[in-house]
Amino acid sequence: MSTGVTYPAGFHAVAVEAAVKKPGRNDLALILSDRPAAAAATFTTNRFAAAPVLYSRRIIEAGGPIRAIVVNAGNANAGTGERGIEDAAAMARLVAEGLALAPDAILVASTGVIGRPLPMDRVADGIRRATALVPGARDGEAVARAIMTTDTVEKIATRDCGQARIGGMTKGAGMIHPNMATMLAFVTTDAAIPRDALRAMLGRAVEVSFNAISVDNDMSTNDTVFLLANGAAGEVDHALFEDTLTDLCRDLATKIVADGEGATKVVTIEIRGARSEADARLAADAIATSMLVKTALFGNDPNWGRILAAVGRSGAEVDTGRVRVELAGSPLFANGLPTEVDPALVSAAMKRREILIRVELGLGNFERTVYTTDLSREYVSINADYTT
Amino acid sequence: MSTGVTYPAGFHAVAVEAAVKKPGRNDLALILSDRPAAAAATFTTNRFAAAPVLYSRRIIEAGGPIRAIVVNAGNANAGTGERGIEDAAAMARLVAEGLALAPDAILVASTGVIGRPLPMDRVADGIRRATALVPGARDGEAVARAIMTTDTVEKIATRDCGQARIGGMTKGAGMIHPNMATMLAFVTTDAAIPRDALRAMLGRAVEVSFNAISVDNDMSTNDTVFLLANGAAGEVDHALFEDTLTDLCRDLATKIVADGEGATKVVTIEIRGARSEADARLAADAIATSMLVKTALFGNDPNWGRILAAVGRSGAEVDTGRVRVELAGSPLFANGLPTEVDPALVSAAMKRREILIRVELGLGNFERTVYTTDLSREYVSINADYTT
Repeated sequence: MSTGVTYPAGFHAVAVEAAVKKPGRNDLALILSDRPAAAAATFTTNRFAAAPVLYSRRIIEAGGPIRAIVVNAGNANAGTGERGIEDAAAMARLVAEGLALAPDAILVASTGVIGRPLPMDRVADGIRRATALVPGARDGEAVARAIMTTDTVEKIATRDCGQARIGGMTKGAGMIHPNMATMLAFVTTDAAIPRDALRAMLGRAVEVSFNAISVDNDMSTNDTVFLLANGAAGEVDHALFEDTLTDLCRDLATKIVADGEGATKVVTIEIRGARSEADARLAADAIATSMLVKTALFGNDPNWGRILAAVGRSGAEVDTGRVRVELAGSPLFANGLPTEVDPALVSAAMKRREILIRVELGLGNFERTVYTTDLSREYVSINADYTT
Repeated sequence: MSTGVTYPAGFHAVAVEAAVKKPGRNDLALILSDRPAAAAATFTTNRFAAAPVLYSRRIIEAGGPIRAIVVNAGNANAGTGERGIEDAAAMARLVAEGLALAPDAILVASTGVIGRPLPMDRVADGIRRATALVPGARDGEAVARAIMTTDTVEKIATRDCGQARIGGMTKGAGMIHPNMATMLAFVTTDAAIPRDALRAMLGRAVEVSFNAISVDNDMSTNDTVFLLANGAAGEVDHALFEDTLTDLCRDLATKIVADGEGATKVVTIEIRGARSEADARLAADAIATSMLVKTALFGNDPNWGRILAAVGRSGAEVDTGRVRVELAGSPLFANGLPTEVDPALVSAAMKRREILIRVELGLGNFERTVYTTDLSREYVSINADYTT
C-alpha cells in the first residue's frame, strides 16, 4: 500500500531481512526517490553522536541532492569508533553501487544495540537485495515495521497539501541492553521546496513536535529526522506546506509518546502566560520530567502539589498568587490556594488515556506545549531487564 | 538517650502527639537550647516556599540568637496563603509563651500534606504540652521519629570535635498525596562559633551533602536545614569543626538516600577530570536523574551506554576519545570504545547495596560527587497510590 514514506509521488521503499541482531524479521529499510530531492535533517545534540549521525551530518552539510536513505534496526553503530564511520560510509557506498547513484546522494541511519560493530557481511547482503527490489516497490508499512525496536506498533502518517503529498514514519522509545531510546523519523514529500526553505521549515516543525516529547528525558546518540522533497508534484504555498508538515510531525511525535514504554496515558502539558519563551520551556519540561508528577498520573492521583512544586523549582518566573493549575479539565489551584474541587471527581476524570495539564502563569504571553507519558511499574520492568 | 540533636551540651528535646493528621503517633517535636544560640539555615529555592519557610527565613535574616525550634509532621502548611503565615507565627508565639522566650528566638518547620490549613487547635495543645515537658528532656531519638513521614527509620548522627559535640537528625523522601518529598535537617552543636562563620560553614557543608543527593530530583516547598551553635563547650578550631560538620551532614544525607522510596541500592556517582565546576555538576546530575540509568541499576544491568548517553546530553564538555566509565569497579568504556570486560561479571558485582559509578572526563581537574538510588517498581507503587 502506498502509505507512509511512499505516499508522495516518486518515492519507493522496501524492507528486507538482514539479520543484523537476530533472524526472523525485516530489519533493513531502503527509501528511494526516483529523482534528486532537496534534503533537510535534524540530528541529536548528544556529544556521543553515533557513526551514522556523524556520517549523514557531513552529507547534509555538503548540501547536494539526495536520492536514497538506508536504515537498519538491531545495531545503532554507536560507540564503535573509526570503524563505525567506515561502516556507515560502506552502507552508503553499497546503496550507491546497487542503484548506480552517487555515494554522497545517500543518507544513513541506524538504531539498536550500541557498542558493537555492525555485522557488515549480513548488512551488505541485505543492502544488495534491497537495491534490487526497491525500484517500483511501495512498501510504506513494511519499512515502518522494519525500523521498529521495542516499539509495539508501526508509526506512519500522511497528509495532503494542495496537489502535493507528505508522508512519514517514525520509531521511538526502545531500550534493551545496552540500547537507548533512539528516535528516528523519515518524512517525504513530492512538493517542490528549495533546500534552504525546507531546512528552515523542518527546524521549526521539529521544535514543536519531536523536540516537544519526553518519555524519559534521555536523548539518544542516534536521534535523527530526515525530510526529502523531490518536487514531483510541483510547487506549493510555503505557509500551507509548513502548517501541514508541522501537523504531520506532531502526529508522528505523539504516536511515539502513545507507544512509550509502559505508558498507560498520553499527557499534554500546556504552559500559558509565561514571561518569556525560555520560562515557558523550563516550566513545561520540569513537569514533563518529574517522576513524582508522572507516577501520580499513573495512579490517577490529582496531585496538584507535585505540579506546583515542579513549576516552582523549574527556574521559571512564577508568582504564587497568579498561578492557575488545571488537571483533566478541573481547576485545582488558583489565587494562591487550592480550589474546592472534589479530588475524587478529578481522579475519576483522570482514568482516561489522554490527560491535559494546563498551567497558566499569568505573567506574560509566552506558551509551550509538550507531550509525555505517565510512569508505570511496567516502565521499570521493561528497562530493568538485563538481557545480554 | 542523649543522641541526635540532644547529644551536644545544653540542648533539650521532646516529642508529643498533636494528632496533626491522625492520632496514634508523636508528630510534634520541640528542640530547646538552654542558652541563646547562633543560628544558620538553608532553605528550599522552590518558588512556592511553604509558610514556615517564609516565616523562618525572616527570623534567620533578622540575625538574632535562637532558643528553640518547633517542628510538626503530617501537614506541610504549604499552599495555604496568608493564613499559613499566621499559623507559622502562631506556632512560634505559642512556644515563646510556654517558655517565656522572645517570639523571634523561635524557628518553625513543617512537613506533610500540602494545601490544607494546620489544625491549629490541636497544634496549640501539642505545643503547650511540649513546652511543659521540654526543660531537661533529652529525647533525641523520639524527636527524630516524630518528624518522619514515609521514612522507614529515624535518621540521626553524632560527632565529636575536640571538646565540643555535634548532633543531628533528618527526614526525607516522603510523599503521600498530595505530599512532596520534604527534606528537613536539624543540627546542633555546643561549640562556640560566631554567626557569620557558622553560616559560611553550613553553606559549604550543605553543598556537598544535602544538595548532592537526588532520589527523584523534585525539590519540595518545605526543604530546610537548621544549625544551632550554643557555645556551651567553648571555642573550637574552625577548620576541624567544618570538616566534622561536613562529615555529619554527608552521613545524614546518605541516610536519606538509603531510605529513598523503593530504593534497593545506594549509588555514588563520581565525576572526575571535568573542565569546570559547572561541567562536573551537569554530568553528575544528568546521570543521577536519568531514569534509564536508574532502572538499569535496579536490574543489575551494566549498561554503560545509558551512562555515556546521559553525560553526552548533559551539556558538559566531553571528548569521546577521553571518557572513561567505571561501574562497580570495572572499566566498561575507554579510548572511545567498550572494553573487553565480561558484562555478566559486572552484573554480578552490581548485586550489592552500594554501587559506585565513576566517570573520568580527562579534560581538567574539577570533580563532583553525588548520591542517588536506583528506580524500582516499588518506587512507582509508593508514589502512584492515591490515598485521599
